[in-house]
Amino acid sequence: MYNILSKINEPNDIKNIERSEYKKLAKEIRACLIRNVSNTGGHLASNLGVVELTMAIHLCMDFPEDKLIWDVGHQSYVHKILTGRRDDISSIRQYGGISGFTRICESETDAVNSGHASTALSSALGYAMSRQMQQKDNKVFAVIGDGSMTGGLFYEALNNAASVRSNIIIVLNDNNMSISRNVGAMSSYLTKFRTDNRYIQLKENAKDAIRNIPHIGNAVVEKVKRSKSSLKQLMIPGMFFEDMGLTYIGPVDGHNVEGLVNTFRDALRLNEPVIVHVKTRKGKGYRLAEDNPSYFHGIEPFDIKTGELKKKKDNIVTYTKVFGSELCRLAAEDEKIAAVCAAMPQGTGLVGFADEFADRFFDVGIAEEHAVTFAGALAADGMKPVVAIYSTFLQRAYDQIIHDVCIGRMNVVFAVDRGGIVGKDGATHQGIFDISYLTSIPNLTVMAPKNADELRSMLQYALMEHDGPVAIRYPRGEAYTGLSEYNEEISYGKAEIIHEGSHVALFALGSMVEIAESIYQELISDDISASLVNLRFAKPLDYELIEDIMKTHDIIVTLEENVMSGGISEHIAAHAEWKGIDNVRFIPVHLPDSYIEHGAPDILKEKYGIDAESILARIRSALNEGEA
Amino acid sequence: MYNILSKINEPNDIKNIERSEYKKLAKEIRACLIRNVSNTGGHLASNLGVVELTMAIHLCMDFPEDKLIWDVGHQSYVHKILTGRRDDISSIRQYGGISGFTRICESETDAVNSGHASTALSSALGYAMSRQMQQKDNKVFAVIGDGSMTGGLFYEALNNAASVRSNIIIVLNDNNMSISRNVGAMSSYLTKFRTDNRYIQLKENAKDAIRNIPHIGNAVVEKVKRSKSSLKQLMIPGMFFEDMGLTYIGPVDGHNVEGLVNTFRDALRLNEPVIVHVKTRKGKGYRLAEDNPSYFHGIEPFDIKTGELKKKKDNIVTYTKVFGSELCRLAAEDEKIAAVCAAMPQGTGLVGFADEFADRFFDVGIAEEHAVTFAGALAADGMKPVVAIYSTFLQRAYDQIIHDVCIGRMNVVFAVDRGGIVGKDGATHQGIFDISYLTSIPNLTVMAPKNADELRSMLQYALMEHDGPVAIRYPRGEAYTGLSEYNEEISYGKAEIIHEGSHVALFALGSMVEIAESIYQELISDDISASLVNLRFAKPLDYELIEDIMKTHDIIVTLEENVMSGGISEHIAAHAEWKGIDNVRFIPVHLPDSYIEHGAPDILKEKYGIDAESILARIRSALNEGEA
Repeated sequence: MYNILSKINEPNDIKNIERSEYKKLAKEIRACLIRNVSNTGGHLASNLGVVELTMAIHLCMDFPEDKLIWDVGHQSYVHKILTGRRDDISSIRQYGGISGFTRICESETDAVNSGHASTALSSALGYAMSRQMQQKDNKVFAVIGDGSMTGGLFYEALNNAASVRSNIIIVLNDNNMSISRNVGAMSSYLTKFRTDNRYIQLKENAKDAIRNIPHIGNAVVEKVKRSKSSLKQLMIPGMFFEDMGLTYIGPVDGHNVEGLVNTFRDALRLNEPVIVHVKTRKGKGYRLAEDNPSYFHGIEPFDIKTGELKKKKDNIVTYTKVFGSELCRLAAEDEKIAAVCAAMPQGTGLVGFADEFADRFFDVGIAEEHAVTFAGALAADGMKPVVAIYSTFLQRAYDQIIHDVCIGRMNVVFAVDRGGIVGKDGATHQGIFDISYLTSIPNLTVMAPKNADELRSMLQYALMEHDGPVAIRYPRGEAYTGLSEYNEEISYGKAEIIHEGSHVALFALGSMVEIAESIYQELISDDISASLVNLRFAKPLDYELIEDIMKTHDIIVTLEENVMSGGISEHIAAHAEWKGIDNVRFIPVHLPDSYIEHGAPDILKEKYGIDAESILARIRSALNEGEA
Repeated sequence: MYNILSKINEPNDIKNIERSEYKKLAKEIRACLIRNVSNTGGHLASNLGVVELTMAIHLCMDFPEDKLIWDVGHQSYVHKILTGRRDDISSIRQYGGISGFTRICESETDAVNSGHASTALSSALGYAMSRQMQQKDNKVFAVIGDGSMTGGLFYEALNNAASVRSNIIIVLNDNNMSISRNVGAMSSYLTKFRTDNRYIQLKENAKDAIRNIPHIGNAVVEKVKRSKSSLKQLMIPGMFFEDMGLTYIGPVDGHNVEGLVNTFRDALRLNEPVIVHVKTRKGKGYRLAEDNPSYFHGIEPFDIKTGELKKKKDNIVTYTKVFGSELCRLAAEDEKIAAVCAAMPQGTGLVGFADEFADRFFDVGIAEEHAVTFAGALAADGMKPVVAIYSTFLQRAYDQIIHDVCIGRMNVVFAVDRGGIVGKDGATHQGIFDISYLTSIPNLTVMAPKNADELRSMLQYALMEHDGPVAIRYPRGEAYTGLSEYNEEISYGKAEIIHEGSHVALFALGSMVEIAESIYQELISDDISASLVNLRFAKPLDYELIEDIMKTHDIIVTLEENVMSGGISEHIAAHAEWKGIDNVRFIPVHLPDSYIEHGAPDILKEKYGIDAESILARIRSALNEGEA
């Protein structure tokens, strides 16, 4: 099936492929990508876009000595196919299969663990300086998408790049489209490059700039001149990068393997970091994806011919949707409400808000730190900003929440989406620390809703009633709609009693209330009296109620989808110990002190013991011990 | 004494001062600064440098409607003097006195709480967009030092600035010197401006650029032309900022009040963000400070005539120095050891290392995120990087520690200086969250030494023996040298028993061991048997030992200089509750769930009950209850 690709079974095998077969190889790689991703789901369009780019880089490298760093890493499938993981692609993002991002533990050709944006240049500088200190001579490539360039971390690294006196190839993979619309000045700047003919007149200046590089300059210019793309390569001066002290080459055609190889070989001869601006097309080679690259960015299993999803999306109501629509409803009532997101209007459910309240909507790009400090000032001036960021990405703004929002008790509401296990994206994306890092912050109120209605109520409470910063944490995926008859008004720091009994007390936070309810039903059907408390507030915890319940129960189960350290299980147990409550047995249910790999959430929840059955087993065991 | 300054008692009063008296006013402000800071200590050189700049800004503003944002905020003393706080300056940075940074709670003319770098432009954008949404017409100024421009947060904001369609004045306060040597490409870029005459030839292009601003352009050009500094203003094109879509004016003389006022008034007429590049001289007007601005950056009380410190610094051995010298010793043995800091080589004790091992030393600028990701890659390639960052600033890199260091168990050692109460810098600088945010991270080992020797041992252990990431947390100031006879070898996850008795058990972490020792001595002298355990590891805690001790003691005191939520007091108490250890009474000693203001550490420790006497009182009260 894969006549050429079947010859590539180890890293570096691509070097044995005849030039004349590059096109066939690219075609086979695309077929492999489309076939597999149509089965497993995953990132397709961006990987189709970098087939030739990845081939060209691999043709220039010797693995594992040379280091190739993919920013974000969701576009590393071709790299995986070319490094002995061709057949593993069928398991990508599945439990037990290979990761959808680069993972050092998966292959020695994966130079970093990737997932969060804008890290690649920092890592490349690390590898380059390590090479220098250890007097090695390996190559270092970093591939960075245009979207990642809005992140401050990229700029911090760029600011340090010019001082490096050895070669780094920084490939700017410009597909004219990050996940959503690109944001900000850097985007405009690149667009200007792409479209403005006035820059052509500057080509001679650019030639001079390259010529002036001692020793090598003229040779490069001459070589580049002879190549087909000489004009294109020289007509863009890349002033921004030159301002930052870096040599810039581009833009070059990202779908011409030999052209890319020649460009990289030239660039590799410079003893300094070189920006190579490569133009690629997302979805390249698969018409449906070329026409609709956003749809095929991250996709569920689909039909190759039609592009339709194999499993029709039911009209699932997700927490994300509930948040988005409730925010719109509130914003229509209160013109002080504004929304801020970091390059994720779709993912955070703010597309409707952006349409309806364009003047009050701010997508700041992949720039979580700025999003939070910016929102702090909006609030200081009397607005009510809602910052919607995934739990894992909000880690980037921990300091800004402490410093620019919570010291001043600013009325900022954090909509912390993807709290808990997110599933197939794996270790770099799980939202398992937020209860810990958020509850450590003074003045911050931290809530988590049990179901869709409660998310609405909490948002309303945070925006309309509460004075001070609030974080509301909710999981990825379908919103729980059960227990809707329990809808006591939200009151500061007050938990909600769902069921009151004796013997076993279940204290559940957010997503764990649904699981606790099914545990409760099992216990009741076994004639075991139990109580279920929906904690609602992770900070402040309702210690008055918690103490009361503890006094009348023997077995205390605390349930959270967060690590133990700094989570509510520890908060409650420590409080009980300090209060001398010692007639109870505790069953703390939380995630382990480890990173959690990729896989379907249900599998992972069972593996890590936060599913109803595992918890029930622990309760039954405690009940038996109690009787013995 | 202050003939002119005495007329300024409220915000905006400066507008009633005659122009002819500006120079006298500036002189009096400087006298006020020098007199007061010579008594209290504080930031002097940077404030002397912005006297005229602050006057000019205030002459253009109406407080409190207009918003003035000082980045970092240590240069806001003149602003404080001009906003009704002239007489309070004598109390600056003292307990109960005014803050050395801007504080919203202190004055409605302080637009933000400042302390950490690179936040000002984000805040300014927030105020500007809020103004737009609320249809107000107040002015927004941000003053940013050249050092702060290395922080990614600044760039994230800059990337969003060009989309703002209303005025913001972004004053780049270029004093050619941030705290230490400026770092990176942005610094080189500014230096090029300062020195390169070739840029003069571009002045006509710049004129055209401004002229092309619809409606206003020509008027500005004409006005600027007439002003004395027209040539200077136009000869620097500020390409970097123009690449980022911003209008740039400068550099202008930062010590000419009327020139600055004219420039600002012109710039205020543009409906867009404008960068005004202002050149100031640190220490201006006080010869000693002009000659030695670094010495007078942040200074203890000094003699005005000689500049000598009033209280001679004894040759205090600080933890910072111990760290620096031990690292040098180890680096001489092991060439894999490298050091990374974020614009604080002096503050983190790395100056000696930088001299001795220049090739292995990296100061990345104010760029904590990059520092950590960079170090992660150094470690991935086999080096042993030590990242030295203050506890409060390391908050910025929480995500990078999780994502780029700890997932891959990289051998990065974090030297977390200024852990605990740091004193006079106040709420924005206290290092009171690190035990919480660091112990939440899987794979990370967290240690804290009891004294100078133990810091050496821990550093050696982390670099030479342990495999995986380690954070070592130690306080600001003089290193404790007591208990040096207790020097059991460091062993993974093992605490050290200092004294073994019964009745009262003291479990102390790091800086609290010294306090626990004095408590122990008091208890012994009262014939109360006690044990003292030096925990050493905050993660993993030595639960085996802790459980053993708990079984033989009635009163358990846990001592840490960290907030409760996620700290070791909670960890230990929760563990005890889960283990069913219920024959003990707990006294958790930790910091409160609030921000901690500025003041001498001793005062603050007493206020918040983490001093020996307060803790003893709690123990005695528990002992009495036990007897009753």
